[in-house]
Amino acid sequence: MSELRSEAEQLDVADPLSALRDRFVLDDVTYLDGNSLGALPAHVPARVDDVVRRQWGELRIRSWEESGWWTAPERIGDRIAPLVGAASGQIVVGDSTSVNVFKALVAAVRMAQEDGGGAGRDEILVDATTFPTDGYIAESAARMTGCTLRPVTPAEVPSALGARTAAVLLNHVDYRTGRLHDLPALTRAVHACGAYAVWDLCHSAGALPVGLDEHGVDLAVGCTYKYLNGGPGSPAYLYVRRDLQPRFDSPLPGWNSHAEPFGMRPAYAPASGAVRGRVGTPDILSLLALDAALDVWDEDGVSVAAVRAKSLALTDFFLRCVGAYVPLGRVESVTPAAHAERGSQVALRCDDAGEVMKRLIEGGVVGDFRAPDVLRFGFTPLYVGFADVERAALVLARTLG
Amino acid sequence: MSELRSEAEQLDVADPLSALRDRFVLDDVTYLDGNSLGALPAHVPARVDDVVRRQWGELRIRSWEESGWWTAPERIGDRIAPLVGAASGQIVVGDSTSVNVFKALVAAVRMAQEDGGGAGRDEILVDATTFPTDGYIAESAARMTGCTLRPVTPAEVPSALGARTAAVLLNHVDYRTGRLHDLPALTRAVHACGAYAVWDLCHSAGALPVGLDEHGVDLAVGCTYKYLNGGPGSPAYLYVRRDLQPRFDSPLPGWNSHAEPFGMRPAYAPASGAVRGRVGTPDILSLLALDAALDVWDEDGVSVAAVRAKSLALTDFFLRCVGAYVPLGRVESVTPAAHAERGSQVALRCDDAGEVMKRLIEGGVVGDFRAPDVLRFGFTPLYVGFADVERAALVLARTLG
Repeated sequence: MSELRSEAEQLDVADPLSALRDRFVLDDVTYLDGNSLGALPAHVPARVDDVVRRQWGELRIRSWEESGWWTAPERIGDRIAPLVGAASGQIVVGDSTSVNVFKALVAAVRMAQEDGGGAGRDEILVDATTFPTDGYIAESAARMTGCTLRPVTPAEVPSALGARTAAVLLNHVDYRTGRLHDLPALTRAVHACGAYAVWDLCHSAGALPVGLDEHGVDLAVGCTYKYLNGGPGSPAYLYVRRDLQPRFDSPLPGWNSHAEPFGMRPAYAPASGAVRGRVGTPDILSLLALDAALDVWDEDGVSVAAVRAKSLALTDFFLRCVGAYVPLGRVESVTPAAHAERGSQVALRCDDAGEVMKRLIEGGVVGDFRAPDVLRFGFTPLYVGFADVERAALVLARTLG
Repeated sequence: MSELRSEAEQLDVADPLSALRDRFVLDDVTYLDGNSLGALPAHVPARVDDVVRRQWGELRIRSWEESGWWTAPERIGDRIAPLVGAASGQIVVGDSTSVNVFKALVAAVRMAQEDGGGAGRDEILVDATTFPTDGYIAESAARMTGCTLRPVTPAEVPSALGARTAAVLLNHVDYRTGRLHDLPALTRAVHACGAYAVWDLCHSAGALPVGLDEHGVDLAVGCTYKYLNGGPGSPAYLYVRRDLQPRFDSPLPGWNSHAEPFGMRPAYAPASGAVRGRVGTPDILSLLALDAALDVWDEDGVSVAAVRAKSLALTDFFLRCVGAYVPLGRVESVTPAAHAERGSQVALRCDDAGEVMKRLIEGGVVGDFRAPDVLRFGFTPLYVGFADVERAALVLARTLG
């Protein structure tokens, strides 16, 4: 047995989260794509079956009240809240990340323009390296609020901020490189210029501390099907800081965000609180699968801090194994070495990355390919172990060799 | 046995759709609330379980391709298409009805303004009797496109139309009264003035013929959890007439509507076809529950025409039973008597309707209450029979007597 293999086994034995693995449906595949679609928590199928057979099938319409369907978006939001450093009452779950980016960014621009008496702030800054949908939606938000959109890298944000800046849309972790951006410092810079910060937490929630309340983030969005294991296309969430909620002016004011949704009033009057971020009827099956998936965070010993510690150990170990096994120069990590700048993934630049990932998957190691040249490996500390990491590096070396 | 009871039994025997009832999970309750949440089709739980355990649990990320997840929105749209009189390639499923109203209405206004060279058309007409969310969203669409919003009753639409009208948002069936509006005539009137018609089909799809293609409707939206039995909060759909698709300019241009979604390009380039109406990652569990639920429409003898014929027979019979059993003047039908003006529900105006509905539900007859004074009974021909109808009227009479 190689030294690294033996070290991996020791690390797994010492891992305080190792027992969690049995809470997920896994097989012989080394699954390093939980940053795209989290694995199935083993207790979820029975819960979904109960929602379908009993709540829908037997209680039918009564479930909106008796099974808590109506309030699920805010109740489940309150379960996500501690994972992103938010007190309760500030998160609602529903709609896709893209739709929530639209809500958050338009609302942010409106606040900035209101601050300035309706004029002056007419520019939105967007992370130029963002996952594309955020950029597309930001373009629409800019067009529909009379702003111009200016793509800049997160590093350029401080110097790009100015008296015209209304809002800044940033990613906590870069989806391609895995770089963790400095949320506290960037948020401070945005605030110093009088603008509003909207953070996309898709690649950080459930993997590392976010500290929304602590750092005074204004608005945030995120998906739930990556490190939160909510299932394919499970609904996204929207955070609106408590003191901003009375000013949250949604571009999608559906009946679910009305102060009196069953009053059936022709005039819109927004609800108080995070509920104001809701739109239409929530998709209950997907929502309640997510609700069940979040149970794993209630287990003894599971915390964001524990997850983060293991995540860094896993990515450190992966980089060491890749360094030891893979021929020099064949791949290059584009993920920062510094812990403070690293998310829960490792991205390796590689020629013919698309073809290499195909062969890796055939070899039982599942990551994903991100155009044009990145092999992306996600490490979900709840179910990925150190032996997985060593094996992945070994198979990668063989595939490249 | 009363004469009406006996007649009900004969009607059930003669009903060509009566066998369908066994395809749904029902019990002793007389369920006349399928226009709010359709009953559970009996085969759906096993299908959902397969999606969760096998497609998500075992195939994981591979299911986006191997289980057809990625193309589900347009594939399931094509299954809904014949139910609303649309050729394939014009409907995508996803998001809530509210979100789809926003997409459709903003896109309609943009087309109208483009027709006029960017100016002139700056008014949106909205059904003043609409389900509230459509009105709230229309207000936002107007605000964000520089239009004014003018609520008018459907009857007033022809005289309200003018050179300023950009788009008109109408309901095929009034959610409160059950009135069926004249979609062909109203669409013609809207077109005659050079504006675009957006129809909300929530209370008609799956219950009566719509004829989107035949009547040249421009855009339409609808939910799938009423007469299509897709489950609580199952995703809505968007119809964009084929010849308008190249001009469909979405206010929510998410990565799922990009011509090359996995190209990860910073610049947005819309896909061709109905896919252009997609936004973010689709909620697969809810989508595939709907997919399964639609199977019932493939059964022998099931057609929109057969459903419509039975629906009218059911509502006719209900009105007769109510007339025979309920003391004169205690309730008043606000649903039109004329078949051409009636949806698949009967709405009875009644003092203390909220309290009456509570007692009806206690008596095993489930309809719903719509503020301020309406008892609403929906008749889903796939699983409601004539004996249900007679029983509901009898329990209503006892409740009121």
